[in-house]
Amino acid sequence: MTHLPGPIDPPARLLMGPGPISAYPSVLRAMGAPLVGQYDPFMTATMTETQELYRQVWRTRNDATLLIDGTSRAGIEAAILSLVRRGQRVLVPIFGRFGHLLKEIAERALAEVHTIEVPWGEVFPVSMIREAIERVKPHLVACVQGDTSTTMLQPLDEIGEICRAHGALFYTDATASLGGNPFEMDAWGLDAATAGLQKCLGGPSGSAPISLSDRAVEVVRSRARVEAGIREEGDAEAIDFIRSNYFDLAMILDYWGPRRLNHHTEATTMLYGARECARVLLLEGRDEVIARHRLHGDAMLAGVEGLGLRVFGDVAHKMTNVVAVEIPDGVVGDAVRAELLDDFGIEIGTSFGPLHGRVWRIGTMGYNARKDAVLTTLAALETVLRRHGASVAAGGGVEAAQGVYGAATPAGAAG
Amino acid sequence: MTHLPGPIDPPARLLMGPGPISAYPSVLRAMGAPLVGQYDPFMTATMTETQELYRQVWRTRNDATLLIDGTSRAGIEAAILSLVRRGQRVLVPIFGRFGHLLKEIAERALAEVHTIEVPWGEVFPVSMIREAIERVKPHLVACVQGDTSTTMLQPLDEIGEICRAHGALFYTDATASLGGNPFEMDAWGLDAATAGLQKCLGGPSGSAPISLSDRAVEVVRSRARVEAGIREEGDAEAIDFIRSNYFDLAMILDYWGPRRLNHHTEATTMLYGARECARVLLLEGRDEVIARHRLHGDAMLAGVEGLGLRVFGDVAHKMTNVVAVEIPDGVVGDAVRAELLDDFGIEIGTSFGPLHGRVWRIGTMGYNARKDAVLTTLAALETVLRRHGASVAAGGGVEAAQGVYGAATPAGAAG
Repeated sequence: MTHLPGPIDPPARLLMGPGPISAYPSVLRAMGAPLVGQYDPFMTATMTETQELYRQVWRTRNDATLLIDGTSRAGIEAAILSLVRRGQRVLVPIFGRFGHLLKEIAERALAEVHTIEVPWGEVFPVSMIREAIERVKPHLVACVQGDTSTTMLQPLDEIGEICRAHGALFYTDATASLGGNPFEMDAWGLDAATAGLQKCLGGPSGSAPISLSDRAVEVVRSRARVEAGIREEGDAEAIDFIRSNYFDLAMILDYWGPRRLNHHTEATTMLYGARECARVLLLEGRDEVIARHRLHGDAMLAGVEGLGLRVFGDVAHKMTNVVAVEIPDGVVGDAVRAELLDDFGIEIGTSFGPLHGRVWRIGTMGYNARKDAVLTTLAALETVLRRHGASVAAGGGVEAAQGVYGAATPAGAAG
Repeated sequence: MTHLPGPIDPPARLLMGPGPISAYPSVLRAMGAPLVGQYDPFMTATMTETQELYRQVWRTRNDATLLIDGTSRAGIEAAILSLVRRGQRVLVPIFGRFGHLLKEIAERALAEVHTIEVPWGEVFPVSMIREAIERVKPHLVACVQGDTSTTMLQPLDEIGEICRAHGALFYTDATASLGGNPFEMDAWGLDAATAGLQKCLGGPSGSAPISLSDRAVEVVRSRARVEAGIREEGDAEAIDFIRSNYFDLAMILDYWGPRRLNHHTEATTMLYGARECARVLLLEGRDEVIARHRLHGDAMLAGVEGLGLRVFGDVAHKMTNVVAVEIPDGVVGDAVRAELLDDFGIEIGTSFGPLHGRVWRIGTMGYNARKDAVLTTLAALETVLRRHGASVAAGGGVEAAQGVYGAATPAGAAG
């Protein structure tokens, strides 16, 4: 590089893919706030305050509710590595790409991993999960709540009780779903849950909210290991320790807890961002934000159908915040995506594995779960599809979406 | 929480501890920039551009120069977990708290860890490291460059050659030193190096710059494993795979490299911040920034001595950017720190383990390697020390620091 580039200056983008999506403006503002020291009373108070905000987001009383400094998969790895010992049985119901990720991470932890699968575009009937739990007798059931690769939302409300009855811990990855879909940590009997900011929470990737039940904390604590550099007399040193320092939840809990024992240096700017994501959500109201995701998700669904496109998967079990649209025959999916981005500044996504090039994924989440974002995307998509030779109903997308907004209660429509 | 807290509003702080320190204003501004999609051409171009900026920061031609999404210890763990197989010998020269951390992380990787130690406040003579390498025959030598716990800077320039002669890989943790002290990745024969943003680079914690030599990449690649969810025919699946998905450098290299194979979702805001940290440094000039750290570090050193305080450790081997000051007899170190923070908004640090409560650590790094920051800290420290009954020379700190500035060349003094 012979000359230096200028200050960062991103192009205008309306991010309507499966995430990351455009952050709430107030989250971006929060992330420009000045830093404070690691043990400044303001810093520790902000950590404590953020924990309380996320208890409301997760709907839990879990004391062990905090952030992992990394992207959403850092949260997944922290949960699985800390909860699972070598050789323990883990059951992973797989209904999309991120189920494979849970399996992969559990394998890295040297667990004995058992899987069950349904075709992409479907979710599991609870009976199928119950049968697998009875058969496998897992130490941990690890299940994605919403898998963006297929847009499916797995119902979790009955699984916790089954896990409890069979002595299994119950973990879910709610990265894609939290904030935009119902989630009840305590009522559903979850022992561990993790997420990221870059979907319905409307922030950037890089901080992973996590919550652990007392039962999960007990498992984690039994494997505690204190760093030699800061170890004091009497600290336990478990033999079957967690095979990671960075993801050792016992140490991370001691840093977030009253002992404030030094571990990593908390990522202050990401903390500010995560705090604001939760604050924005709770200010609007948790149920109101879910209802807003449902409204605009329904409008987008009606809109793409109004354009004459087919929707992929079991729509009755779709997440509120993303829809998978089959790419019409004869249309090159990536060419449409490129034109939407270049000419309209709008991003939509494709998918992974068996769905790559077969579907587009269109998100309506966080800040972009908005009427103008939905209608603009539908209008632009119609234009681009026509240019690519697809037969689309003129104005059909916007009109169908407007129909959903017209039918909504004024309070909902105002979102 | 019955009512919600307001937007984040941190108190004014001058962070003169061992880090994190106050970020450069332009870094904070960069982190408020809007997000773009994960595979937006602007995003991938920004990743590539940031790699090139960090090659200049590290002084390397290493293609494998990138960021790990996590704090500085995430970088350490990524390097060690990816380079070291179970049972391989790792040599860790320990001269402070962060040497213990390298040992601890290598133990988590189930390495056979050998250590050598010098008392806190000293560095290793190269002969001692050579002797240990000849005796242990390690696969990897892992050594901190600058250990903030003692303020010592280990000379690394001769160790690479010894490692090469004995077939060992050479890794250093430069978190506390990079940017403010000489560093020559290629000339010193380093195979791996990691850092964080929150010290001399003048950014927030949460992103870990890393660079790997071709030799190190070869070791990492030999352990590659592709995620099942995105695996294609013909991808290798190594048996002795890396025991972490998040820190699997082979996968991370494929994400940052031309394949752009999906792994985590890059933390966009941290990327913007990391990019600006490097840009600010290179705009001023790499050598000029090191000289500025040396100037203001010298001024702070002269200043605390001018107050009649004793400096801890081998000053000839001190990092430029932090000084350890012995707490005078009869003075309660934490009470002085609290008063500095409460009355003056200035933070200084204490240390860990054997030095906890025995020394203060005063940093002059990144944005705060500035004359006004140095003089303000010395004036406030004098006032507080006197209130706590210590005998201090009136005006002695500021005067001694001014003496250093007066003697400096105008170019240096202008920093």
